[in-house]
Amino acid sequence: MNKICELFEIKYPIVQAGMIWASGWRLAAAVSNAGGLGLIGAGSMYPDVLREHIQKCKKATVKPFGVNVPLFYPQLEEIMSIIIEEKVPIVSTSAGSPKLWTAILKENNIKVVQVVSSVKFALKSQEAGVDAIVAEGFEAGGHNGREETTTLTLIPMVKAAISLPLIAAGGIATGGAMLAGTALGADGVQVGSRFVASDEASSHPNFKNEVIKAVEGSTVLTLKEITPVRMLKNPFFQKIAALYENGADAEELKSTLGRGRAKKGMFEGDLEEGELEIGQIAGLINEVLPAAQIVQNLIEEYNHTLKRIKEI
Amino acid sequence: MNKICELFEIKYPIVQAGMIWASGWRLAAAVSNAGGLGLIGAGSMYPDVLREHIQKCKKATVKPFGVNVPLFYPQLEEIMSIIIEEKVPIVSTSAGSPKLWTAILKENNIKVVQVVSSVKFALKSQEAGVDAIVAEGFEAGGHNGREETTTLTLIPMVKAAISLPLIAAGGIATGGAMLAGTALGADGVQVGSRFVASDEASSHPNFKNEVIKAVEGSTVLTLKEITPVRMLKNPFFQKIAALYENGADAEELKSTLGRGRAKKGMFEGDLEEGELEIGQIAGLINEVLPAAQIVQNLIEEYNHTLKRIKEI
Repeated sequence: MNKICELFEIKYPIVQAGMIWASGWRLAAAVSNAGGLGLIGAGSMYPDVLREHIQKCKKATVKPFGVNVPLFYPQLEEIMSIIIEEKVPIVSTSAGSPKLWTAILKENNIKVVQVVSSVKFALKSQEAGVDAIVAEGFEAGGHNGREETTTLTLIPMVKAAISLPLIAAGGIATGGAMLAGTALGADGVQVGSRFVASDEASSHPNFKNEVIKAVEGSTVLTLKEITPVRMLKNPFFQKIAALYENGADAEELKSTLGRGRAKKGMFEGDLEEGELEIGQIAGLINEVLPAAQIVQNLIEEYNHTLKRIKEI
Repeated sequence: MNKICELFEIKYPIVQAGMIWASGWRLAAAVSNAGGLGLIGAGSMYPDVLREHIQKCKKATVKPFGVNVPLFYPQLEEIMSIIIEEKVPIVSTSAGSPKLWTAILKENNIKVVQVVSSVKFALKSQEAGVDAIVAEGFEAGGHNGREETTTLTLIPMVKAAISLPLIAAGGIATGGAMLAGTALGADGVQVGSRFVASDEASSHPNFKNEVIKAVEGSTVLTLKEITPVRMLKNPFFQKIAALYENGADAEELKSTLGRGRAKKGMFEGDLEEGELEIGQIAGLINEVLPAAQIVQNLIEEYNHTLKRIKEI
């Protein structure tokens, strides 16, 4: 049996990324009901909002689901307590060290999967006792690693270094790419951008439209001096680009960036002033679909592609 | 039959990249004799040296081989004349527009394949009449595109845009990655870094050793203000990094760079002062092998991986 399906007790080895301003209970429940693993994205939620989403998700699905927690979250203890109290079965941790929280979560019968962007961090996470690794490449949307290692090269290098179940992330929106991840040694995939353009994502319709309109080259990894993040090259990004051209330092960048840019763009739909985080593969996404349809397409394309390929 | 094998009249859809200071007649002939397509890298050769390599290659193999020509080459007309005179069957053009030369080469019964890093340039190349496209991702070594699109996302986007035979490049050093490229829609692969660490590559043994020692994160895409190039983070790169930290402009970068850095590093083996161009996948390459063994491994791993993967 597939290691990821076994670990999470799901039908298909497809994890829906816990993305800020996109991954609420509606999306997570829809993906879990469709046989994948839905994740609520805690990164954009106050603790009480997260609790509400968890409770609604439990009512909307009997299948396993999880919560993604960025480990730089300011009220980390509070949301971890909520997750434990609400008996969420799976936690995905990212953007920080899994050392402190993994043991606590596992004592509470919660499975832990850590998102990494390098072999070094995959090894550290394995040492910290996580149950599985998500290795995410340079092409992924949102926050990203400093090594800039792409999914195609990261997966086999992480695979060679660790023995844990491995989930490929970054650039995967089709069953063909899911098969590519499997060929590279992954046991499953995590899909982000494709689920932003889903009916159930809480992303603003304006943002979903921009994802659909994106083409090859529409995104860029920027703000490397602060935290590298991949976004669409919209007017807000052009402002950042102009600052770079004038030789701005990290402080100036931070002050232009201000606060709430991601919410403004992705949740409120301000395409001029907001930050629109999405992966390179947005260039291949052409329509908003129901989440269940996305899961079904991934599986059908995977099987179809596998049948098409012959031995040499 | 495989489109790439048919087009180039070769056994396996594997193209060996025509890399500067690595891809001389020995490597090209070895790959062609092993059933792939060997390419001589004209980018680091004076016209008379290129002619010598072509003539030696013709003596060393009866199989088809080709020459890679970077289109910014200063004596472009001279080397194109040599290629036509010597009846080289295949030319790979890169780093420039295929508009001018494609028709001339094709009038001389030469097949033309163009290396691109974006959908836009793939479309322009198709329009110019090339026979096939190599789409090369951000993870590739050496000169690289400004869009920073990775192989995993570039291949399906180019595939969706063009109808020509498509070769995936960047990050491919194993049969697993070759299968991944096929799953993404490519008809064949171009392999660079893996052939640098081959017995027949003219790269200096010091450089080959550095490729073997490289790990995940050892390379970086830099000098974007001049021409983006991926290289090892050796002492020469540290000098560039220090210039960036001091806010150097393109002129200062050019003057530190000087001339002949690539030759010094990759051909003369100066690991301190030379530029060492290689792809991210160097982190997965652990031994120098004969070129024929590399071709054989790619095919065996491809078939082995395909057998391992089951339908979902």
